[in-house]
Amino acid sequence: MAAPSRNTCGLTERSVRERVPPLLNDLYQFTMAYAYWRAGRHQEPAVFELFFRDNPFGGGFSLFAGLHDCLLFLRSFRFSDEDVEFLRSVLPPATDPAFFQFLRGLDCSGVTVRSVPEGTVVFARVPLMEVAGPLAVVQLLETSLLCLVNYASLVCSNAARFRLAAGPRRRLLEMGLRRAQGPDGGLTASRYTHIGGFDLTSNVQAGFLFGIPVAGTMAHSYVTSFNSLEEVWPQTLAAANGDPEPVDVISLTKGWLSRVCELLGAEPEKIREGELAAFLSYAVAYPQNFLPVIDSYSVGCSGLLNFCAVALTLCELGHRPVGVRLDSGDLCKQSVDVRRVFRLCSEHFSIPAFDSLIIVGTNNISEQSLAELNKKVKGVNVMVGVGTHLVTCTKQPSLGCVYKLVEVRGRPRMKISEDPEKSTVPGRKAVYRLVDADVLGMIFLLKIKEINIICIYLFKYIPLFNICNTVSYCLLSFVYVCSSHKVSLAK
Amino acid sequence: MAAPSRNTCGLTERSVRERVPPLLNDLYQFTMAYAYWRAGRHQEPAVFELFFRDNPFGGGFSLFAGLHDCLLFLRSFRFSDEDVEFLRSVLPPATDPAFFQFLRGLDCSGVTVRSVPEGTVVFARVPLMEVAGPLAVVQLLETSLLCLVNYASLVCSNAARFRLAAGPRRRLLEMGLRRAQGPDGGLTASRYTHIGGFDLTSNVQAGFLFGIPVAGTMAHSYVTSFNSLEEVWPQTLAAANGDPEPVDVISLTKGWLSRVCELLGAEPEKIREGELAAFLSYAVAYPQNFLPVIDSYSVGCSGLLNFCAVALTLCELGHRPVGVRLDSGDLCKQSVDVRRVFRLCSEHFSIPAFDSLIIVGTNNISEQSLAELNKKVKGVNVMVGVGTHLVTCTKQPSLGCVYKLVEVRGRPRMKISEDPEKSTVPGRKAVYRLVDADVLGMIFLLKIKEINIICIYLFKYIPLFNICNTVSYCLLSFVYVCSSHKVSLAK
Repeated sequence: MAAPSRNTCGLTERSVRERVPPLLNDLYQFTMAYAYWRAGRHQEPAVFELFFRDNPFGGGFSLFAGLHDCLLFLRSFRFSDEDVEFLRSVLPPATDPAFFQFLRGLDCSGVTVRSVPEGTVVFARVPLMEVAGPLAVVQLLETSLLCLVNYASLVCSNAARFRLAAGPRRRLLEMGLRRAQGPDGGLTASRYTHIGGFDLTSNVQAGFLFGIPVAGTMAHSYVTSFNSLEEVWPQTLAAANGDPEPVDVISLTKGWLSRVCELLGAEPEKIREGELAAFLSYAVAYPQNFLPVIDSYSVGCSGLLNFCAVALTLCELGHRPVGVRLDSGDLCKQSVDVRRVFRLCSEHFSIPAFDSLIIVGTNNISEQSLAELNKKVKGVNVMVGVGTHLVTCTKQPSLGCVYKLVEVRGRPRMKISEDPEKSTVPGRKAVYRLVDADVLGMIFLLKIKEINIICIYLFKYIPLFNICNTVSYCLLSFVYVCSSHKVSLAK
Repeated sequence: MAAPSRNTCGLTERSVRERVPPLLNDLYQFTMAYAYWRAGRHQEPAVFELFFRDNPFGGGFSLFAGLHDCLLFLRSFRFSDEDVEFLRSVLPPATDPAFFQFLRGLDCSGVTVRSVPEGTVVFARVPLMEVAGPLAVVQLLETSLLCLVNYASLVCSNAARFRLAAGPRRRLLEMGLRRAQGPDGGLTASRYTHIGGFDLTSNVQAGFLFGIPVAGTMAHSYVTSFNSLEEVWPQTLAAANGDPEPVDVISLTKGWLSRVCELLGAEPEKIREGELAAFLSYAVAYPQNFLPVIDSYSVGCSGLLNFCAVALTLCELGHRPVGVRLDSGDLCKQSVDVRRVFRLCSEHFSIPAFDSLIIVGTNNISEQSLAELNKKVKGVNVMVGVGTHLVTCTKQPSLGCVYKLVEVRGRPRMKISEDPEKSTVPGRKAVYRLVDADVLGMIFLLKIKEINIICIYLFKYIPLFNICNTVSYCLLSFVYVCSSHKVSLAK
């Protein structure tokens, strides 16, 4: 889990305080707080529940995330003089000045949070967090808690779906910083996609703050910035065995390039010299980390040949090239072609290192295209980098968590809406998660305290657990589960 | 425009420095910067262009936003010792230590930005920003500039589309904080939707930092927190005319409620006393700002009747109720029904204030449902609050801006991709925007400097300008525009 690394804990806490000041809130929380205060109800004990109404992405589950930030937010929740002065300027002039004194003294010392642990698999309509405390205070917390949980849980769940589509072994890289909702959206995405199952991120700050492994080598701009082999500098490289005599890599690479062209029947005049220069220059800078992007011009006519020539040069000098990145075109087809060429080179030139070269695909990958890749390209080890579809959650860009009042002064409260979907289940709940021994069935019991009503939530389809999809079958399972299997308490 | 208000300029600048530290960057920018540095190319003058490839939302235009933050970011771009130490730990061990010294001394003093102004209507494939400077530095800026422009421009454009759908007069409220990508995503949304045409935000921090007018009154939790009229406190209210004798609002409201029920033929037993108590309590706290949410139980059977009773009480005491909020059900149908009841009350009780009550609709509004509202409910003044669909840009959650190298050492650079769509136009450009006198046609000329090539971009459909939709017609227009109309320089 991407918990803050030890030396950056303070930084994360400070960052939450700066990112989520108490004014980052909907105005109506303040107008309501005033109305509670004016009626003398602000200290009444109240309980809110945070949950979502539908599992995201048309799927059967979600992951819960954002709790750590919520707790840091609650710990730092306090109004400054400047905050209170601003509120005075936007609330109606009739607002009693004593209310602002009340706000100035507020904190969350009277608030209790019960929650499922960060990273838990959770389901629709089951409470994720229960926030209890003085009515006015717990009301004021709504927007910030929702803001911290909604996207964190959504992007974490999205990452988990990509992980399920990719299978357990394929390496997944998150690279969505430039496509997220601003800097903090990007950082949140890096953090919670790691919890959701991604191995790496391109985001250096996420590495710094949360200890997530970072990865990345080059963009097309690096390749296109080179024009000729004259720009390669230094033009020599020492062998890995420590031989102090540096070798002229230009001529070495040129030799390998003609041999590769001959092997593959390629036309040397179609090869881009600038691309070869870029690859060689990068290889000289990082002989142990050579993983260029090979589609700046043409993978088949130039990029792949240039890569092979430079990688063979590195191998001859005892270094170990890493692989290639593909960022456009048909990833399935290309990865098969590229792997075939690697095998040919490995066999023809007796360079077994070519068998363990990796292919990184970063071309507009979605959950679907990842599943397709798995199906079509079995046995070809392709690491996948995902940006846009992962961080913007294209399929459903909002989780829709809500924060609903369920109890005031020990009495259950409920909302009955014009949309039956939006009605709430009143009262504090004890949540039981019933699982049979083989985790083939799952069912939730929400026991409402005080009034002893039990709600049962059934899930039509949980891909993780291959659950039954009709209510009758679920009810049968329920009896089965209750009568013969263990009961585990979710919170 | 939501430029920072005078007293918060420093706050915004500090905020950008904290939100966009130089490590909030893709790792490959650093590996490339090192490779440039190692080859002695880091100081070579280079030019990048920032643009997007397709107009968002399947539409004909975008708005450009994020420039102000980009400039603040460039001004504060500098690595701390701590940043450099972290980079040392993640870059390959072979990295020359002198490179980190170089990083430590970097800033953007050698960088020049040319840009279209913030808030400009812009189009696909035409450069929005041109960033020129030392190759390694301008390379390092890519991710942050994209991150700051991409979402800001997207959400600003989305807001403009909502504004076009709503027409010029309808008041629009942004209320997406809880659905955005974390705290900063929410703040960015509030800021740039205001530039895009929204009048108000629910986000208090956006009011504080950018001077955007804030709005909001109450949520369902406030309504459901009340159970009986005994909870209303104080139970009296002074008249607006300054009469010192407070009036018993409970009995006054009860009286109005029976008259309203009689007028509308409603069943008094279906009316929720808790809801009436909530409305009355809020009205006592804010007699001039009474705008409750009326769908906590049932609009027709309870909420609307309770509102009318309390609003009539306020009117009798000389106060002026504001209106109602609808958050579920069919907004078109409900707003017609509510307006009809307001008119009935106005006529029957001779209370003309009821004619100017406002209706606020906040129920899952999309661009489409807004257009439908306009079509179906002509003449009913409904103010609209938009959250999820606005801030997550459901229809297209990413703009896809890119940052491409177009020149190094005065020589044009280009990328030719496996996807023709991803190829770039080489060289720095002078952009001319040709508009005919009636703004019925628009065309772009990109004159590439040095090599004197002219690219012409045609737009199939620009809803703002009712432009021609076939290439041949466009070419004819082009000749027409060039021969007889003014030429305006876009940047």
